[in-house]
Formats: sequence, structure tokens, C-alpha cells
Amino acid sequence: MTITGPLEQAQLLETLVLNIVNHQSLIATKARRLSYAAAGRPIMEFGARRAQGPDSALYGTRAAIIGGANSTSNVLAAKLFDIPVASTMAHSWIEAFPDELTAFRKWTEQYPDNSALLVDTYDVLNSGIPNAVTVFKELRAAGHEPVGIRIDSGDVTTLSQAARTQLDAAGFPNAKITISNALDEHIITSLLHEGAPIDNFGIGEKLITSASAPVLSGVYKLAATESNGQSTPKIKVSASREKLTIPGDKQVYRLYEPGTQRAFADLIALATETIVDATSLTVVTSDPLSVDRQQRLTHFEARPLLAPVDLSNTTSIPVTTIQATTQAKLAELPRTTQRLVNPDLYPVYMTTTLSQLQTSLLNKMTILAD
Amino acid sequence: MTITGPLEQAQLLETLVLNIVNHQSLIATKARRLSYAAAGRPIMEFGARRAQGPDSALYGTRAAIIGGANSTSNVLAAKLFDIPVASTMAHSWIEAFPDELTAFRKWTEQYPDNSALLVDTYDVLNSGIPNAVTVFKELRAAGHEPVGIRIDSGDVTTLSQAARTQLDAAGFPNAKITISNALDEHIITSLLHEGAPIDNFGIGEKLITSASAPVLSGVYKLAATESNGQSTPKIKVSASREKLTIPGDKQVYRLYEPGTQRAFADLIALATETIVDATSLTVVTSDPLSVDRQQRLTHFEARPLLAPVDLSNTTSIPVTTIQATTQAKLAELPRTTQRLVNPDLYPVYMTTTLSQLQTSLLNKMTILAD
Repeated sequence: MTITGPLEQAQLLETLVLNIVNHQSLIATKARRLSYAAAGRPIMEFGARRAQGPDSALYGTRAAIIGGANSTSNVLAAKLFDIPVASTMAHSWIEAFPDELTAFRKWTEQYPDNSALLVDTYDVLNSGIPNAVTVFKELRAAGHEPVGIRIDSGDVTTLSQAARTQLDAAGFPNAKITISNALDEHIITSLLHEGAPIDNFGIGEKLITSASAPVLSGVYKLAATESNGQSTPKIKVSASREKLTIPGDKQVYRLYEPGTQRAFADLIALATETIVDATSLTVVTSDPLSVDRQQRLTHFEARPLLAPVDLSNTTSIPVTTIQATTQAKLAELPRTTQRLVNPDLYPVYMTTTLSQLQTSLLNKMTILAD
Repeated sequence: MTITGPLEQAQLLETLVLNIVNHQSLIATKARRLSYAAAGRPIMEFGARRAQGPDSALYGTRAAIIGGANSTSNVLAAKLFDIPVASTMAHSWIEAFPDELTAFRKWTEQYPDNSALLVDTYDVLNSGIPNAVTVFKELRAAGHEPVGIRIDSGDVTTLSQAARTQLDAAGFPNAKITISNALDEHIITSLLHEGAPIDNFGIGEKLITSASAPVLSGVYKLAATESNGQSTPKIKVSASREKLTIPGDKQVYRLYEPGTQRAFADLIALATETIVDATSLTVVTSDPLSVDRQQRLTHFEARPLLAPVDLSNTTSIPVTTIQATTQAKLAELPRTTQRLVNPDLYPVYMTTTLSQLQTSLLNKMTILAD
């Protein structure tokens, strides 16, 4: 992202922009990882009570949907952002009645066509499922079909398999099984590897806080100043080459195999450079650890990623549209870079002009310091 | 915390109460850990740009101060909650000028009596400190004393030691050294163990997100219902004894050595029980893994922890007062329970009456389920 403006104004924005972009990118990324692990099964966002503050729940939910979650139990987020709401019931509903069967009946009276019964308040297999089956039969007799059950504790593989068997035997093969118990992408992968018959995943704290990596360390750096129409590129030097900034006003191109939607690398150039689709271009990898930093690219189509945003145009884009665009963009990236464990690195290059500018500014600053 | 009210109203509060209490307790606890590690040196909260949303930064900062942080760079939090603000300068300030020396001079012109110069934009020892010393001498000649320097990258022990030597040699033994580079309680402990001459710690992302443990899994459970003045205790059963709820309307007592502020345990009782200072009382440990669950307590003074809150009284208590109260309460706990690594467990007991109620409800529910 490039922000251009009077220095004082651009500086005032730093903390807010970083806060929003870091937070929401983090949660969207986590949702993407969970969605990848769930391999097509819906993800329900359940994290409001464990988010780091009320707004964190609200905007975290929005980001989770963009990243690939399918629905949320956060009714305010669902209302404000027009995203699907996921129905759920609480253990306290069950406890508020004299017994579980009465609690289930009272719930299905309210929601005859949208009842996912929570079966683990007392004992999943000996109480929860039998009581759910009783109520499901009553529902069906009254002309309704149950949605299914939710399990929120215990060994999920064992319980979901036994629950599936009991529901099938009772004549409810279409009743869905939802699981929600401190799930993350690795637990989901393991459950599916074991063949647990799970239809939906409800994911709370691990998604809404990105618990495995709760910080995205995005930065906001001065890249250039302008005076009398003259742009001066700027650099922040660091003992670590990874923290060295890339100077100047820039454009980023995504490089595709010609005529396809298959992206294979990104290329950072100065905004003043012209990048044309070419059969051959020498570039420099931006990975400071790479041994062979010069690379020759052949046969690509370059499409710019940065486009101006008109802040006076406040038409908001529907969240589900942003979700669809994001998912389409992700689908363009190499499959090998998308796996959860040991992903291949997606290459990011700089043009030789930009790389030379970075090196010359670094040398100048090092000389100044001597 | 106990919340009493009509079931529907109390239920509506669940998500909001959990969100706020979980989040702010988490950050206050993390601040306590950092403050413990810093062993008396001030902690400055620097995390706004990495918090999980703008409100998370704001209320996270408030919680950090309560937990033991001393100041914040979040000017809005400082203004709203009347807490000390910590001055800092950005790398972009330095980069915005033709050279570091000019940038330092322009800054000290603005803040002659409150200048902490950031010395790592180009090279700490060969550029940052020498330029800072030049400006400090000019400041002193003009009748002002510098505050000190801040280092935000590199090997902090080496750099702080060399910086201390250079500042002392230049005649500035009182110039403070502030460090701020992805610090947490373990890095602080290690730096101080090595004898790094650090005066202040600026802590960003690891504090404001509680990065090492970003979720506090507090729950909100139905403990009792009331009908026609008759209270009925409720329980939520789980396959794991740790997730079993403690039924009934309760009071929590902190147990002190008589006549002192030295607490040694907490005791959970039914609100209807009378707990008097006693020389002998049989209690049950709430630790489900304990082998010997019955314990005999002798010679204690019991002081109730739960007091009614009048929600119609909206007088807000100053954050610094809450901080002082919190720190005084923490000081009452055994030192052995406060260390960062391998702390002793602080005992929490139940009365035998409460324990028997829990067991009888558990048995009843298990029978129901059979």
C-alpha cells in the first residue's frame, strides 16, 4: 500500500492504518488457513467472547469472512456487514430447564426449521443424542426437518463417529454434525485425516485472535519525500538486511503465465519504470538470503496490483463481494505456496533499477555514518 | 464475578462481559509479567499499531497500566484515561531530513526538555550516538538537559553497553537508555541477567496482544435459577472434571494469616454459608488433579472478595487508582506464586457444603443420562 500526502497528514495516519491493516490481514489469513484445512466444509466464526475487545470481534469477523469463513454467530457483525449468521444454542439454555429433553423441545418450538441441538451438556451419547433423536422424530411428525447437532467437548473423532451412527440408525442421515471445541487448522486436518464425519466447523478463539500467530508486524515507512516537484527516495538502514526498506515511489506487478490466470511471482518496480509483457527481463530477488540474487524471467504478462483509491467515493463494497474477489485472487497463486505446512516461497523480485537505487542509498548512508 | 438478573437480560450480557473481561484481564496480566521482569524499571506501552483493532489498543492500554505499565505512546488512551504519555520519535522523522544531525536538532528545538533521540536509523554507535552527543552538548549549552536515547534494533546488550560508555564519556551519565525491539518478559529477564544498562523498556506488540498467550478462556455459566424466591443450583457436566462448573450462588473469601495482609489461599463458599475467622475448618481443594482433596485449614482470617456493584452509580474510578489497588492486592499474594517460570500454585478451596452440592448434582445428572 502506498500513501501519498503532506508529510504531517501521512504521519498522523500511521498508527491507525497499521492497526487496521495488521489486525484484519492477520484474521483474514487465519480464516484462510482454517478454510484450507476444512477442505470445503463450512467454517462458522464463533469467537466474539474471546476477541481482544468488542471492535476486534466485529472487524475480526468481517476479516474472517473475507478470508474464507462462511458465517458468524456475531449477530451485530452479520447485521452491519450483511453476512450469513450461524445459529447456535448455549449450554445455559439447556441448564435453564429442568431437563435436557424439555430444553430441546422448547428450542425446536422456537426454531422448528433451524434447530442445531447442542448435545454435550450432560452426556453426548447417553443423553444428548437420544434426546435429540426424540425431538427430531417429533419435529418430523410435525412436518419439519432438523438441521443437526453440535458437539463442543470430548474426543471429537469418537463422538462424531458414534453420533453419525446413532443419527443414521434413527433415520436422520441428513442431520449435520457441527464441531466446536478450541479448533485450529492442525486439529481440523487431524480430524479429517482420521475420517471424523464432521459437516461444519465452529471456530472461536483460535480464529478471532489468530492465536498461533497473534501479531502481524506490518510497518509504515517513509519511501520518498517531494519538494518543488522533485521526488527524493528515502531509506531506513538496519543491521539486519531484512529490515532494510525499499526506497522510492513504487508499483507492484503480478506476473502471470501469458494468457492465463496462473501467477508465478510479483515484481516491485519504481512507479516511473515501464514494465511491459516481455520474453526476457533480468530482475533481482528481494529475498536477502538468496545466494543467486540475479534472475532472468522469460515469457510473462505483468499486471499492476496497486490502483489509486478515491477517498471521496464512499460507496462501500459488500463484504461477500470482497470475499469472492479475495478467494479468486488466492486461487491464482501456485498451489505449492498455499499448503499449511512447509509451503513453497512465492517469489518477489525487484527491478534492477530499484535494486541499484536501494544499494546506492545504503552505501551513501553507510559512508555518512563512517 | 456473579451476575444476577432476569435470565434473558443476564444471557444477553454474556458475550459482551466475556469479551471485555477476558481481553482486559489478559493484557493486565501480561503487563504484570513484563513489569515483574523489569524489576522496577519503567515499562512504556508502545503497541497501538499492532493491537487487534483500534479499541483493542485503547482498552488494552488501560488494562496494561492497571497491570503495571507506567506510561503509553497512545495519546488518545493517555487523554481519555488520564494516564502518563511516553514521548517517542519515529524513524520517519529522521528520514524526512537530509541527515540525522539535522533531524535531531529540529526535534530538540521542539522538545528541548523532553528529547529522547532515536539513534538506530542508520548506525547506532558510528552515527546515532555521536550525533546525539553533539546535540546534547548544544542543548546543555542552551541551558537544557537531554532525556536520553532510544535503541530499536540490533543486539541490545552490546549496543546499550557501548551507548552507556559513550554517553558517560561525553559527560551525560544521566541520559537514560530506552530499549524497544519486540521485547517480552523472557528477553527482558535475559538482558538484565547480562547486565545491560537499560533504564526504560518500550514494549509494543508482545504486550498489547499478549502474544505468548493471546486468549484468556474465561467462561460465563449458569450457576442457579430462581423461581418464586426459591433458588435452584445448576451444573454443566463435562467429560473433563476441569470443565465441570461449580453450582449455586457463591461468595469467594481470601484467607489471610490473622492480623496480616499475607494471603495464603482463596475459599469458595455458597453465598448462604457463614464463613467466620476460625482456628480450624475442613475444606476441599478445587484442583481436580489433587490426590488428597480434603484439607484442614487452621488459623485464618477470611475476607470476602465479591461486593455488589451499583450500576446506577456511574462515578468512574481513576485508572491510576485502580492500578494502585491492583498492585497492592498482588503484593498480598505469596511471592512463590508470582515468579514467571514454574510458579507455585495458589490454593483455591471449596467448602465441604459446596463440594457436596457439586457432587450430588453431578451424580444426579449422570443418573439422568443413564
